Amino acid sequence: MFRIGVDLGGTNIAVGLVNENHEIVKKATTPTFAKRAAEEIIEDIARLCKKVVNDAGVDFSSVESVGVASPGLVNSGAGVVEYANNLPFKDLHVADMLRELLSFDNIKLANDANAAALGEATAGAATGASSSVMITLGTGVGGGVVIDGKLLTGFNFAAGELGHIVIEVDGRPCTCGRRGCWETYSSATALTAMTNEKIEECKKAGRYTKMSEAERVNGRTACDAMRAGDEAAKEVYDKYVYYLAIGLANIINIFQPEVISLGGGISGEGQSLIDALLPIVRKEQYGGFLDKQTALRIAKLGNDAGIIGAAAL
Amino acid sequence: MFRIGVDLGGTNIAVGLVNENHEIVKKATTPTFAKRAAEEIIEDIARLCKKVVNDAGVDFSSVESVGVASPGLVNSGAGVVEYANNLPFKDLHVADMLRELLSFDNIKLANDANAAALGEATAGAATGASSSVMITLGTGVGGGVVIDGKLLTGFNFAAGELGHIVIEVDGRPCTCGRRGCWETYSSATALTAMTNEKIEECKKAGRYTKMSEAERVNGRTACDAMRAGDEAAKEVYDKYVYYLAIGLANIINIFQPEVISLGGGISGEGQSLIDALLPIVRKEQYGGFLDKQTALRIAKLGNDAGIIGAAAL
Repeated sequence: MFRIGVDLGGTNIAVGLVNENHEIVKKATTPTFAKRAAEEIIEDIARLCKKVVNDAGVDFSSVESVGVASPGLVNSGAGVVEYANNLPFKDLHVADMLRELLSFDNIKLANDANAAALGEATAGAATGASSSVMITLGTGVGGGVVIDGKLLTGFNFAAGELGHIVIEVDGRPCTCGRRGCWETYSSATALTAMTNEKIEECKKAGRYTKMSEAERVNGRTACDAMRAGDEAAKEVYDKYVYYLAIGLANIINIFQPEVISLGGGISGEGQSLIDALLPIVRKEQYGGFLDKQTALRIAKLGNDAGIIGAAAL
Repeated sequence: MFRIGVDLGGTNIAVGLVNENHEIVKKATTPTFAKRAAEEIIEDIARLCKKVVNDAGVDFSSVESVGVASPGLVNSGAGVVEYANNLPFKDLHVADMLRELLSFDNIKLANDANAAALGEATAGAATGASSSVMITLGTGVGGGVVIDGKLLTGFNFAAGELGHIVIEVDGRPCTCGRRGCWETYSSATALTAMTNEKIEECKKAGRYTKMSEAERVNGRTACDAMRAGDEAAKEVYDKYVYYLAIGLANIINIFQPEVISLGGGISGEGQSLIDALLPIVRKEQYGGFLDKQTALRIAKLGNDAGIIGAAAL
């Protein structure tokens, strides 16, 4: 038997046929063209579902479920995307639409950060863990929580907004309307902002920094310059790591998950990021004296986490 | 059938015989005398368990389970209190000790904040809710999380330390070793500290405040003075409410529970506290536009929450 996982993003739709070992055996993608009508996007999803099945030379009757990972506020119970920032979806009955287009009943829907967390828990960095949290360090800070194999959704399916835990009252303004959200300190966007601030600060102080040579400042600028021995870059990186560690210690104090996996652009820094975080996290967290400590890992599945997680819904 | 709930505190041991409607039909208490040997404390628990059964005129064979709520780090899986701040317990096999003393097998153990949360979820402010969080505003800020009738314990039974979420990086020092924990802004202890600070500030500025007339400043001083029209007291109260609301919005963004119940000393302020909190919480929380919003309530069971929750373990 197979399962289909759909990773719907603002830029691309990726659909994978997943086998019983949680491996993607066929994959198809198409641009989302997010400005067009919602119906056309859903039709493209259906088309790609049929395509991966055909391309694999199997029959749709060997498909057990179709899972869709969507950005935004996803009501998994009703199969509805209630709202999405960068898609033309408002109270869109995605599951029902796909049921009709595919003449197939077992359609599941989840938020993309949640699906990715389930992917890592099923076949990635948290395989075999009784509980795990995935934190995605990208444009924002996304979160997904898996406890005993089940996603934490909350009674209204809006839970797990871990990036929107305030860690600094009246701190940096957040896109969510609050101030001082973890996301405003620990996303790639935040790291880019801190890098730009430091470049500006150095400029004013007449201090040299390699970071100012970057053609386009992004989340890697400070990391790369730091590795090249730049002191100002190290200051930016250390500050970023400190805030990230504070937030991760919060997550441990809340959930004490067996594994926290870090995904998203910044997680490309790999083990060196974990090594920088761990001493601060252990000092900050509750129960540091216990035998059993939350493992902190880099996520394994990369861009496939959404597909594999959606297939596992 | 009955269940026995034991609420073990630093000051008192309270044991209740609980019927199938989650009502305490018999209760017995004794001082903990926390400085004596752990064995004597456990013997007193066993004695009170037998006493409530005898006093009710029933037989121990009609008791289904004995649940114990203990402060500290409680390994519910092993029935062990690994560590407690204000009790002489270190890796104490409480469940095994009671099994022997009572010649009774079904002994459960949980952290006291968790047991209280389960009590409110079973027969208190969150009865019937699919998920709930109880926040205790006392000496510290305690937390307990119930999802689908199950306590969130984490893989090492140390989860739910919601008072130790940092909401202000490098903020007020906390007993846990961190700085800026929610507890340092929202506990009764914190409110007392803020009150003392304001009294001092007023004294220096030659500003009158009714709060300075308090014989002994505590968590109620600012609340009482505010109700009597004191402006400085209102400043303290407003600040306290603001920080508490920030933390509650964090809890909603993490769990989106159906109910949050507030217990502990400060919750004695009742509905007026909820009314002060709600506008800020709704503005701060994620998904404020959703139909389903977390209800914010004052806990109902008071000191009985621990017994009723322990009995429901």
